[in-house]
Order: sequence, then C-alpha cells, then structure tokens
Amino acid sequence: MAKPQIYILLGANHNMLGDREPNLYGTQTISDVENLCRSEAKELGCNIEFRQSNHEGHLIDWLQEADNKAQGVVLNASAFSRTSLVLQSTVSAMAVPVIEVHTTNIYQRDDRPPSQLTCVAVGIICGFGPNVYRLGMHAVRNLMD
Amino acid sequence: MAKPQIYILLGANHNMLGDREPNLYGTQTISDVENLCRSEAKELGCNIEFRQSNHEGHLIDWLQEADNKAQGVVLNASAFSRTSLVLQSTVSAMAVPVIEVHTTNIYQRDDRPPSQLTCVAVGIICGFGPNVYRLGMHAVRNLMD
Amino acid sequence: MAKPQIYILLGANHNMLGDREPNLYGTQTISDVENLCRSEAKELGCNIEFRQSNHEGHLIDWLQEADNKAQGVVLNASAFSRTSLVLQSTVSAMAVPVIEVHTTNIYQRDDRPPSQLTCVAVGIICGFGPNVYRLGMHAVRNLMD
Amino acid sequence: MAKPQIYILLGANHNMLGDREPNLYGTQTISDVENLCRSEAKELGCNIEFRQSNHEGHLIDWLQEADNKAQGVVLNASAFSRTSLVLQSTVSAMAVPVIEVHTTNIYQRDDRPPSQLTCVAVGIICGFGPNVYRLGMHAVRNLMD
Amino acid sequence: MAKPQIYILLGANHNMLGDREPNLYGTQTISDVENLCRSEAKELGCNIEFRQSNHEGHLIDWLQEADNKAQGVVLNASAFSRTSLVLQSTVSAMAVPVIEVHTTNIYQRDDRPPSQLTCVAVGIICGFGPNVYRLGMHAVRNLMD
Amino acid sequence: MAKPQIYILLGANHNMLGDREPNLYGTQTISDVENLCRSEAKELGCNIEFRQSNHEGHLIDWLQEADNKAQGVVLNASAFSRTSLVLQSTVSAMAVPVIEVHTTNIYQRDDRPPSQLTCVAVGIICGFGPNVYRLGMHAVRNLMD
Amino acid sequence: MAKPQIYILLGANHNMLGDREPNLYGTQTISDVENLCRSEAKELGCNIEFRQSNHEGHLIDWLQEADNKAQGVVLNASAFSRTSLVLQSTVSAMAVPVIEVHTTNIYQRDDRPPSQLTCVAVGIICGFGPNVYRLGMHAVRNLMD
Amino acid sequence: MAKPQIYILLGANHNMLGDREPNLYGTQTISDVENLCRSEAKELGCNIEFRQSNHEGHLIDWLQEADNKAQGVVLNASAFSRTSLVLQSTVSAMAVPVIEVHTTNIYQRDDRPPSQLTCVAVGIICGFGPNVYRLGMHAVRNLMD
Amino acid sequence: MAKPQIYILLGANHNMLGDREPNLYGTQTISDVENLCRSEAKELGCNIEFRQSNHEGHLIDWLQEADNKAQGVVLNASAFSRTSLVLQSTVSAMAVPVIEVHTTNIYQRDDRPPSQLTCVAVGIICGFGPNVYRLGMHAVRNLMD
Amino acid sequence: MAKPQIYILLGANHNMLGDREPNLYGTQTISDVENLCRSEAKELGCNIEFRQSNHEGHLIDWLQEADNKAQGVVLNASAFSRTSLVLQSTVSAMAVPVIEVHTTNIYQRDDRPPSQLTCVAVGIICGFGPNVYRLGMHAVRNLMD
Amino acid sequence: MAKPQIYILLGANHNMLGDREPNLYGTQTISDVENLCRSEAKELGCNIEFRQSNHEGHLIDWLQEADNKAQGVVLNASAFSRTSLVLQSTVSAMAVPVIEVHTTNIYQRDDRPPSQLTCVAVGIICGFGPNVYRLGMHAVRNLMD
Amino acid sequence: MAKPQIYILLGANHNMLGDREPNLYGTQTISDVENLCRSEAKELGCNIEFRQSNHEGHLIDWLQEADNKAQGVVLNASAFSRTSLVLQSTVSAMAVPVIEVHTTNIYQRDDRPPSQLTCVAVGIICGFGPNVYRLGMHAVRNLMD
Repeated sequence: MAKPQIYILLGANHNMLGDREPNLYGTQTISDVENLCRSEAKELGCNIEFRQSNHEGHLIDWLQEADNKAQGVVLNASAFSRTSLVLQSTVSAMAVPVIEVHTTNIYQRDDRPPSQLTCVAVGIICGFGPNVYRLGMHAVRNLMD
Repeated sequence: MAKPQIYILLGANHNMLGDREPNLYGTQTISDVENLCRSEAKELGCNIEFRQSNHEGHLIDWLQEADNKAQGVVLNASAFSRTSLVLQSTVSAMAVPVIEVHTTNIYQRDDRPPSQLTCVAVGIICGFGPNVYRLGMHAVRNLMD
Repeated sequence: MAKPQIYILLGANHNMLGDREPNLYGTQTISDVENLCRSEAKELGCNIEFRQSNHEGHLIDWLQEADNKAQGVVLNASAFSRTSLVLQSTVSAMAVPVIEVHTTNIYQRDDRPPSQLTCVAVGIICGFGPNVYRLGMHAVRNLMD
Repeated sequence: MAKPQIYILLGANHNMLGDREPNLYGTQTISDVENLCRSEAKELGCNIEFRQSNHEGHLIDWLQEADNKAQGVVLNASAFSRTSLVLQSTVSAMAVPVIEVHTTNIYQRDDRPPSQLTCVAVGIICGFGPNVYRLGMHAVRNLMD
Repeated sequence: MAKPQIYILLGANHNMLGDREPNLYGTQTISDVENLCRSEAKELGCNIEFRQSNHEGHLIDWLQEADNKAQGVVLNASAFSRTSLVLQSTVSAMAVPVIEVHTTNIYQRDDRPPSQLTCVAVGIICGFGPNVYRLGMHAVRNLMD
Repeated sequence: MAKPQIYILLGANHNMLGDREPNLYGTQTISDVENLCRSEAKELGCNIEFRQSNHEGHLIDWLQEADNKAQGVVLNASAFSRTSLVLQSTVSAMAVPVIEVHTTNIYQRDDRPPSQLTCVAVGIICGFGPNVYRLGMHAVRNLMD
Repeated sequence: MAKPQIYILLGANHNMLGDREPNLYGTQTISDVENLCRSEAKELGCNIEFRQSNHEGHLIDWLQEADNKAQGVVLNASAFSRTSLVLQSTVSAMAVPVIEVHTTNIYQRDDRPPSQLTCVAVGIICGFGPNVYRLGMHAVRNLMD
Repeated sequence: MAKPQIYILLGANHNMLGDREPNLYGTQTISDVENLCRSEAKELGCNIEFRQSNHEGHLIDWLQEADNKAQGVVLNASAFSRTSLVLQSTVSAMAVPVIEVHTTNIYQRDDRPPSQLTCVAVGIICGFGPNVYRLGMHAVRNLMD
Repeated sequence: MAKPQIYILLGANHNMLGDREPNLYGTQTISDVENLCRSEAKELGCNIEFRQSNHEGHLIDWLQEADNKAQGVVLNASAFSRTSLVLQSTVSAMAVPVIEVHTTNIYQRDDRPPSQLTCVAVGIICGFGPNVYRLGMHAVRNLMD
Repeated sequence: MAKPQIYILLGANHNMLGDREPNLYGTQTISDVENLCRSEAKELGCNIEFRQSNHEGHLIDWLQEADNKAQGVVLNASAFSRTSLVLQSTVSAMAVPVIEVHTTNIYQRDDRPPSQLTCVAVGIICGFGPNVYRLGMHAVRNLMD
Repeated sequence: MAKPQIYILLGANHNMLGDREPNLYGTQTISDVENLCRSEAKELGCNIEFRQSNHEGHLIDWLQEADNKAQGVVLNASAFSRTSLVLQSTVSAMAVPVIEVHTTNIYQRDDRPPSQLTCVAVGIICGFGPNVYRLGMHAVRNLMD
Repeated sequence: MAKPQIYILLGANHNMLGDREPNLYGTQTISDVENLCRSEAKELGCNIEFRQSNHEGHLIDWLQEADNKAQGVVLNASAFSRTSLVLQSTVSAMAVPVIEVHTTNIYQRDDRPPSQLTCVAVGIICGFGPNVYRLGMHAVRNLMD
C-alpha cells in the first residue's frame, strides 16, 4: 500500500529564512526546515511534497493539486494568510484537511490583522518555531486514523 | 466587417467548477460554461475569448489586452473581486466596458466583504447561475448599440 | 394555458422619471419605461402588471398580492431599497422570485448605503439604464424554465 | 364603570401569518391570534381593539388614537420596530403604557438590528409565540393596578 | 402678478403639538403655528399651503406637487428627517428650494441620529421654537430676490 | 406525580434589593421577592428553588444543577448578563428552558451594553418590576404544556 | 435705556473673505459683511461689536467678554467649530445666548466633521450666505422678547 | 531527578463534557480526557495535575500555584478565554510557559470574539478534538528541551 | 468617638506583588504595601481593613460590607477594573465614597481598555507607585471633612 | 539650597472659576485656588509659579519654560486636554514630571472624549475639587524624594 | 528680476530641536536647520523666510501672508498637522503651493493619527531628517518651472 | 570602485502610463519615465535597474534580489501598495533602504485606503509627478552619505 502523502506549502519570503530578521524567525534556513520535515516524515511513514513560492497563484495551483494527490496539507502562507480571500476560498473548497501553521504566535503581534485562513483550516498550530511543521504533520497523521 | 469581440475572464478556482462545492456552484464544469458562452456568442454574432487563471497578474495582463482588442469584457473575478484594488484600478482605467458577473448572489452570503470591482464596472449581474455569462454578453451587446 | 404573469413594481419618485435629474436617470418618462416593458413582455409571452407608488405600504401590499398571482417580480424599490427592512422582510417571505433592478450602478455612488433588499432577492441587475427591466423579465423567464 | 380598553396593534406582514415561513412563525393565522386575544380579554375583563396594517402611517394614527381612548397598548410593530424612529417618537410621547412584544426572541437572530422601540416602551416580552400577546395584556392589566 | 407660493409641510406627530411633551415642544397647537405662519405670509406678501401628515408617502406626494406649484418649501419632517432616504432623494431632485427647520436644536439631543435631509436642503434653521417657520419663510423670500 | 420544579436564580447585588438605589429598583427586599415567587408557585402548582449569589461561579454551578433537576429556570443575572460569555455558554448548552428577566427595561438605560444572555435564552421579559419573576414562572409553565 | 448689544464674532480666515474660494464663499469682503451687519443693527435698534481673529484664544477672550457686556452673540467660528472643544466648553458656560451661523450649509460638504458648537449653541442658521448674520441678529432679538 | 510536572487546567462547563452539545464537543467525558492525558504523560515521562473549575478565581489561584510548581501549563479556559483580562494578566506575569488549547477551531465560529489569552500564551493549538491536550503536552516537552 | 474606618481592597494577582514583573510593578511585596498603609493610617487617625482576593465575588461581598462598616474605600481592582460591569454596578450603588487607585498610569499602556470603574468612583489617583494607596487614604480623609 | 519650584498651569476658562457653572465647578474663584496652592507650597517648602491662559500657545511656551526652571508641573489644561496633540507632544518631550489634574472626575461625564495628556503625564489625580492641586503638589514632592 | 521667495514655516516645539528626544529628532538645533536652508536657498537662487511658533494662530497669519508674498511654502506644522482643520482650511484656500514635510516618517509611528494637511498640500516629503527641508525647497523650485 | 546600484520598481498598470487617465497621470509613457531616471542616474553617478510588472510575485522576487545587489530601492507599487501585506512584510525585512514614491498625492484622493508600505519604507515622496523618481534617487544618494 502506498505511503500517505503530505504537502507542506510555504508562502512569500520563506525562501529568505535564516537571513531575514533572525531575532524574530531564528537562524534556520529553508533547507534546514525541509530536512526537519523529511526526518519527521520518515518517522511517521509519510511522503512529503515540500514547496515555497512568492506567488499567490502558485499556492492556489498547488493546493488544487494537493486536493487530488495528498492526504493532508500543512500550510504556512506567510503574510498571504492575512489578506488573501482567494486562498481562503481555495482552502474552503478542499476535501483534504489543511492545517494552518505559523512559527511565531501571530496573535502576539497585535499590529497585524488576524489570518483569513484560520476559519477554513481544520486547525491551527502556532508559536513553537519550526516544530510547528512537525506538529502539523502529526496532526494530519491523527486525522487519518 | 469584423465581428465584435468579447473577453470572458474568470478568476481563481473557476477551473475547479463542477468539482468543488456543487451544492453552491452547481455541477457544470468550466468546459460546460465555455460551451454555453460559445453558443450564445454565435446567436449574438460575436467572437469570444474565454480564459481562466489562478494568478491575479494574468487577469491584469488580459484586461489590458482586452482594452485594445475587444468591445467588452464579462468578468467573474471570483474571490479576487473581494480584495483586489489592483484589479479595481485596472478596470477603472479601461475604455472598454467591463460587466461584473457572479453566478451566485454574492450579497446573500453576508460573511463575505462586498466586491471592490462593482464601483468601477459598468454594471453588475449576479445570482442566476451560469446564465449570468449569457446575460453579461447581452449587456455588452446592448452597450454597443 | 394561461400566460405567466410578471409584476414590475417601482418605488418612490419613479413617477417623476424624465423630469428629474435627467443627467443621472435619462429622459425617458415612466410611460416610456412601461411601453418598453410591454413590448418585451409580448416577446417573452408574458403578461405584466406595471405599478408605481410613493408609499412603502403599497409596495408591501403589491408584493403580497404578487406572491399569490404572479410567477415573478421585477422590483426597483428606489430609495426604499436603501433603508426598508420591512420590504426586506416582505420579500424574504415570498415564494415567488423577486429580481432587484436599478437603472444606475448603485455601487458607483458611494455616498449611499447599500440596498437592504439584495440579500433577499434572487439576483440583482443594475447599471444598464431602462434595459434592466427587460433583463429582469428575461431572468424571471429563465427561472421558470 | 366602563371596561378598560387595550389596543393590540400589529405591523407589516402580520396579515400573512400562518402563510409565511411557518417554521419560524407557526401555523396560526391572524384570525387565530385575534381569537386568542379576545378570550384572554374576556378573562381579564377588558375590551380590545385589534388591528393590523402594512402602512407605518396607520400605526402612527392608531397609536395617537390609543393615547386618547385606551388604558394600554400591546404593540408588535414587526420589521418597522427595527428602523422606525417615527414610531419611536410617537410611542415616546404617549402617556398610555406601550408594551412591545415579538413572538420570536428577536435577539436570537443576530443578522438583524435591535428594535428602536424598546427604549421607549414600558417593557418587552418576546420569544413565547402568540402567548406574548396574552402576557402583554396581563402586563397592561398589572400596570393598571 | 400672482403672489409667490410657499409650502409649509410638517411630518408625523406634529398634529399632536401642544398636547405632547410640552416641556420640550411648548404649548402651542398646530393651529397656533398655522396662524403664526399665515400672519407672517401676509407680511411677506406670500400665499402659503400648510399641511401635516403622519404618512411619509404624503410628504413625498406634496413635495413633488410643490416642485410644480411653489417658489419654496419650509419642511419640518419630524422624525422622518432622521432616517428617510426617500425624502432625501425627493428633496434632492427638486428645483424649488427646500428649507429644513426644526423647532428645537436637534443637535443638542445627542441620543438621536443627524437629519438625512440637511445635506440636500438649501439651508437649515433650528432651535428657535415656532419662530423657525417664520425665519424659514423669510429665507425663501430672500432666495427669491 | 411530582410537582414541576423551577429554579429562580439571581446574580450579584440582588441581596441588597430595597437598600440600594430604591428610586431605580423599588423598596422591596430580596425576601419580599422570594415571598412573591413562593405564592405564585403555589398558584401554579410548582416548587421553586430561589437563590442569589455575588459569585459568577455559583450561578454556573446552579444552572448545571438545574439542567438536571428542574423543568425551567427564571434567571436575573444582573450585571453578569452584560459581559459573561461563560454564562452564555452555560445557558446555551442547557436542555431546560431559561427565561431571562430584568425588573427594569434594560434597553432604556442606553449607557449600558446589551445582555449577552438574551441570544441563548428562550425568551425575555423585562420592565415590569418584581412582576417579571411571576411572568417568567408563567412562561415556564406555558412551555411545559 | 441703553440699546442692546450684540457681539458678532468670526473665526480664522474670515479676514480673507472675497479673496479666497469665491465660488464657495462669494465675492463679498469682510468689510461688506460688517456693513451689512451695521445696517441690520440700525434697523433692529441694536449696537454691535464686530470682530475677527485667526487665534482661537482671542475668540475665547471675546466670548467671555460678551457674556458680561452683551445680550447675545452671533458666532461663525469657521473651521474652529469643527474641532474646538475649548470653544464648546466656553459657549457651554455662557449665560448669554450664542447663535451659531455658517454662510454655507456645512452639512452638504460631507468631507468635513460636524460642528462641535451646535450642541451648546441656542440654535443654528446656515446656508443662506451673508444673510445668516442678519438672520442671526433677528434671532437674538426674538430671544430678548 | 524528579519528573517534570505539567498542569492541565480546564475552565467552566468542561465538567459537563460528553453531556453537552455532543455534536460540537464529542461524547468523551472529562474522565476520558483525563485518562487520555495520563497515558500521554506516562509516555512523555511527566507528572500531571489535572483540574477543572467553573470559578475564574480558582483558575487564577491554580495558575499562580503552577508558576511555582510546574514546568508548563496546558490551559483550556473555555469561554473565560474570550473575556477574561484577569486571566490574561495572570498568564502574562508567569515565568512558566502556558499553552492555550481548544478542542474546536475557535476561529471557525465567527459569532464569538477572539480569545484574550492567545496574546500572552506561548503558542496555540486548536481544532483537533481532545488530541489538543496531548499535542499541548508535547509542546511543553519540546520547550523544556 | 470611634476612629474612621477605611477599606483597602486589592484584586487579582496583587498577592504576587514583588514577584511578578518587578520592572513594571516594583519589588515591594503585598506585606510591604500593607505596612505602608498601616503607618499612614496611624498618621491619619484611621483604622484600616486591608484585603486581597483573586475572586471577583469576594470583592463584591467586601464592597457591600464596606458600605455598612466603613467611611471610605480605596480600591485597586487590578484587571477586574477593565471588564467588570458587576463591580461597576456594585460601586455605583454604594453610599460610601470609593477611590479608584492604580500604581501605574493605566492610560500609558494603550494596549489595554480603560477602567470600567472610573465612571462610578468618586475620583482616581494613578501613576505614583504604592504611594497611590496613601494618597487615596488622604483623599478619603478629605472627603470626610 | 534653593527651594524646589513647581509650576501650576491652568488652561482656558479657568479664569472664570466661581462664576461659571458653580454646581459643577464650585464657587471658589481662581484667586481662592491660587491662595490654596500658596499655603500648601509653604507647608511643602516649595515655590510655585501659578498661571492661567485661554491660549494654547501660552501653555506650550510655559511648559517649555518649566522644563528648564522647575522640578515639576501640575497641569489642568481644561478642555485643551481633550483634543490637543500639540500639548501631548510638548509634555511628552519634557524631562520634568507633569501631573495631570482635574477638579471633577472627567471620566464620569461620558459625553466627553478622554484626555490626550494622560498617556504622557506621570500620573493623574481627579475628582476631588480644588484639593487636586494640593495632592498634585504632594505627588511632585514625592517624586523628588 | 526679483529672486523667488520661499516661506519655511515650523510649528510648535521645533524651537526645542536638538534638546528634546534627540534619539527621535537628532541633535541639530533650529539654528542648524535654518543655516541648512539658507545655504540650499543660495544654491537654488531663492530668498527664504524662516519662522517658528508655538501658536497656531501665527501659522495661519503667516500662511495668509505667504499667499501674497511667496512663490511656495515648505510647512512642517508639527503636531498641529495632526488635528488642525483650521490649518487645513487655510492651506486649502491658498493659491501658492504648500509642501508638507516631516523629518521623521510619520506613518511609522502608528500611535498617532494621520496628518490633516496632506490632503490639501501639493505633495509630501517625510522621513529623511532635516534633508526634507532641502527636498521641499527643490520641489517648490520644480513647481515654478 | 563600482558605482552604486539603485532599483526602481513599478507595480501593476504602470506599463500603460501615458495611455490611461492622462488627466490624472500625465502623458509620459513608461519609456519617458525610464529615460528621465537614466539621465538622473548619470548625474548622480549611479547605475539603475528599472523594471515593471503586473504580478505581485515579481515585485517580491525583485525586492529580495535588490536586497542583495543594490544600495537602495525606489518603489512605486501602484495599487499593490494599498493592500499588500506581503509586500509590507518583504520591505520590512530588507536591510537596503526602500523609498516609497507616488506621482500623485495619494492622500488627496480620499476614496482610497492608505498605503500599507509607508510604515516600513524609510520615507515617502509623493505628489510631484514623474519628478518623484528623481527625488527618490536623490534621497537614496543622501542616505548613502
């Protein structure tokens, strides 16, 4: 039997991880995060598809693709999550569960509007640094049981 | 004399029509909608350009193109219509009339903000399912008389 | 078999059409509009009941009447549409479809509050001058198929 | 000594009771409600004046009349109660107590603005179906003691 | 040459003047006010048409009539002025100047929304008791010079 | 067969009744109110449980208890009703009907936010002084029929 | 017996009258306005004190002075009226009646906040050009009767 | 070396779990949840202190206690989380990390205000049913590494 | 003659003073504050009752008690002051003066809503550290003269 | 060693104290207040500079002066405090502590916006009549220790 | 031919430059800024009038003067720009272009309301320290070409 | 030594410059603007990278690139600036200074929301037509000194 597939999708500026505002986002690069996810996937017996883009349109394309090919999505849509009703509408129409994650506790930075995705995601995990990806994968795994 | 040209432009997620939330959007696929528009075009003596994209940038490119090549645009910008001031600004600068259409009555779903495009479109038609495209083409035709 | 019946109901000040603010509402009088509707009705094989009043109470009476006698209503409630929750409540309770129309694009005049009727109407058509009545009758016709 | 007189006034669309949205308002017609009130009146030793109108102006006329002829008013102004500052102003100036009633708990339907009459009524009773009229008459009776 | 004609129109509850809330509105009845206006008219060399109604629809009918027959309107629309966008729309379309008057300073009673008519009236006079009608007639007279 | 049981629960400061702000709340003490309820209970053939507390937690405990032991609750949660989402959540989960009562018309005192409980209570009765408890018991009785 | 004294006080920028935005404020200079007031004063049998300043502090000083020396004030505080709570507080404490006037109908220019003075002035007159000063003086005269 | 200690604190109405609104909160009782947590604790090598109260004051007392005795807190403050600035202030002053959990995705129920605790908690986990407690304990464990 | 009695009441988390956020609240413990108050009381010739609780209900009980036994109350209700309308209602009904104090200037921390108690307290003193208790006692003393 | 210097600055209309609205502000004149402050100064071993102006600019000049010459400022900026961001900006830049005082409890008069100065003042004292100046001087004295 | 004249006007507290909050506004004094402007003027072939005041009234007087004598104004109205509708009205009426400048990027300090002058200024330059005056003078120079 | 590099980035619809709404944006095409910038660059001794896109994603890519390769960015993000929190987040993380420019004074067109980029840009220059690009390049140059 085929291993379950999890899409891990990252939005704009995550390709700069480790470089930008390290006091806020830590020093791990996006490769470090991908590696972290790959070892967790091994442990959970899953395959993962790990992608990042600065283009909202790509995230929509990938979410539509995931709805056909995956058993779950871990989504960190970065600042897109704060305004994108198109992503909201995309996630809202998906059959496959989408877990919204953020490495920081986005509600502690009150100069920012709340996420538009939370209301359509299955659940939310935020505030635990890159561990949110691992916890998100766990959550997908639980939902499959 | 050349037949008039109408651009019919659809925004994000319309490629999933028929698949997604059929209780809300019906079971017709995007091909069905295109065919519906093509027969209406024949009846009205028009050519149509029928396109869809998940990328806001493409819609802007196409609207700029339509302003040069078409006599009117029927635009269903999906959730982009709810936030995109860039699309608003694009439509606002066009000489060619743009008709905003939505298959559902977007004002009946009060958990959603109003469209940002209505204030710059010539007119609006919504709530009649895929027939809104036909009515939109009619409206363009009337405006040409 | 009896021809289908469509009520076309107009609210306050529409009796002054052609007279008032012609740069905004055109030079057609209410008789011109009625004639336009009557020829369209002939073409669509419908009977129409065409009425106007400056009294909100009459519109309520007529809508209740239409719910018993007609197959659809094309309603241009003028400024009543902007505040009247009683009309909203009346339309909301009707079994017969009500199409809200406005000759101008009411969303382009941002100094005015949105219509209270749109959320209970089947659909909305606005911005195409007196043609909105014809398109509204078409829409009723389509809904009957 | 003359029996006390109570006016029971109903606003727009109450003439359609039993017909419209029975899942919301029940299957009793306006005649059933009137009969209910008449038996209660007998029990309380009162006369009642029971009227309904779709015209706000009639309600104002009747409230002014009641202020001269009655010992109390039970008022279900329907959707007028949600916007009518004229009714508010009329009730506010009355010497005779006005009891505002609604058959449903209007505060449970949060898509609707609060009543403009509550702040000028003596008290409010809502949520108990047609029994609110009986309780309203009781309340008038108590106020007379 | 015919004397100029001024319409003096009063809204809901003004028929109760002198009766209701005398500490707020004084003890003069509506007949007293009419007499006050008639003597002022004599002095100004005008005819007046003095009317009151509890029905918004009548005010609309009369304003439309005044636009044909009068040189000016002094309008005290009572609480209608606070919500009626239909009256706003009626006044807005009139060629004849409309002066909005209120016997009390409506801005001192902050528990009430501002008038919807002020933005379309030529000018406003309020706070001087029944003298506002006389001052309003003066103002119409000045506008005719 | 056992008599039906009604819980009558009062929130903070009601133990000071008669003492505090008598011009607002009257001179009856909490014992007077209890006696009033006990005679009404006798007449209605019910048992009552009459309690008051200044602690929100106690009200929650008692409501949970009432959901097991009673046929209805008459609740005057005093100022707790204005902010307590915990009480809202407690009432919302109850199977037994809860009637919200207030001795004064809480909507006449506009310097105060609306009650958070109304939207989850079956109905509301307010403005008739201590009689609201009796009317509330009546309403429970009616709901049992 | 001494003639009654009326203070006519003008705020910032009124010294530029006739010069600035003549399409909005007309071509009369501040001297023209003063002369208009002086002839009206003669007719009414009053003395006037006519002053203008760009300094809010002077207006406060003068209002305090007028409260001792005058029988009434006609105040056109220009844009100060839109924000100055200090002027509001000054007028509020005065025993002598203050009439607020504006040459334009300030409520027709909706890009501007309402006046802070209206709620403390006896009454308001606006929209009739420089005639508002004359009407204001009349109003003071009436208040003295 | 002593095992780490985790406090798991539950707010009002959680003692009714399984009983109330099972379609929303599932059929597990509070004992089932406690058992779930105890097995997870065994696996993680922790001790837990598992408590529930309907009294806000107890939660404050326990959080102060946990700040002295525990290495972390998993807090589901139920509806208290939506209004309690006192709990916010308590959590804000704690040195020990507090993880906010909710079994449902609280952001999907838009008729409710956002949590007041999120801005002071280390992170948030919600939407995964009783598994949120296990994930919360994991998160505490990770924070200790 | 008996010495005057002053209640000094402290709300949630004040038992942690000195421990929590010393950069914000200083290093003095609650015992230090009590001692400070006791020496001040000696100097002023008063007795004091000094209490703290994490339970809102206790504060209500104590305020009711103080209204019978004391000549004044110095109240630092901590975060309860920011939301508790029940405390507002309790203080509002008291005959004995209540002085609201806060050690910090609560208006300098704009991420927090204003106090709900200020509008019912006699006066407010904040921003001077633990000296606010002494100044509050002084103020009570002055009010007794 | 030179005595410490305290500036006591009063804003607009305070020169009318005793004269204006005595039921609100008492019958003491500004000289009485100055004398009160001078005796308190003697007791505290301070010199004071006591000034009042109706001109916002003077208050700014004096605050700048005080920042060079004084050890503290007691400021009652009257209605300026409610709108003046310039005074806010002035106080915000000062090294010398500024105590904001008001004789009345400004938060009890809810028809007024909150003070713009509180967020930049060291602390606030209000509601105790002219004693607020004395308490303010005490507070400056304490801050110097 | 006479050299063009530029007015450089500074509002309240700019006389304290260098002294106050140097981390925010730098260490340059107002003389340094004036010198900077004078050398730039030499380079641009202009005369300048450089003035500062803490009195809003002076700024109004000077702007009126500049409208007669200058070819442009560079205005840094300090905190006046945030509230002064009188300055807005003054600038709005000027024929001579006014450039609004701020040394800091006023939009980065979100605890402050936006400037009321920007909507009437020709353009805005902010965020470049004292260089904004030089850039403002350049901009005036460009507008003269 | 290499010449400094400045990126000049333009958002959606700027490729239509000269074509669209010339009364608002002038008749210069995007090539004219590029030429203007190239001559200014020569004068300032800089190299420039001049690019335009209708795709938000490209702007993000280019800003990330500029952060590595340039000494400054002049950014006219067109309507993207009004809503894009992703661009805000991108600019916010950059080490290289970003100058926001707009050819028109965007604050004069009040039907549009403020820019989301201003709060993260170093400074803003707007209202001077295509000269804003030159002034922006100057500002970058100054920042390098």
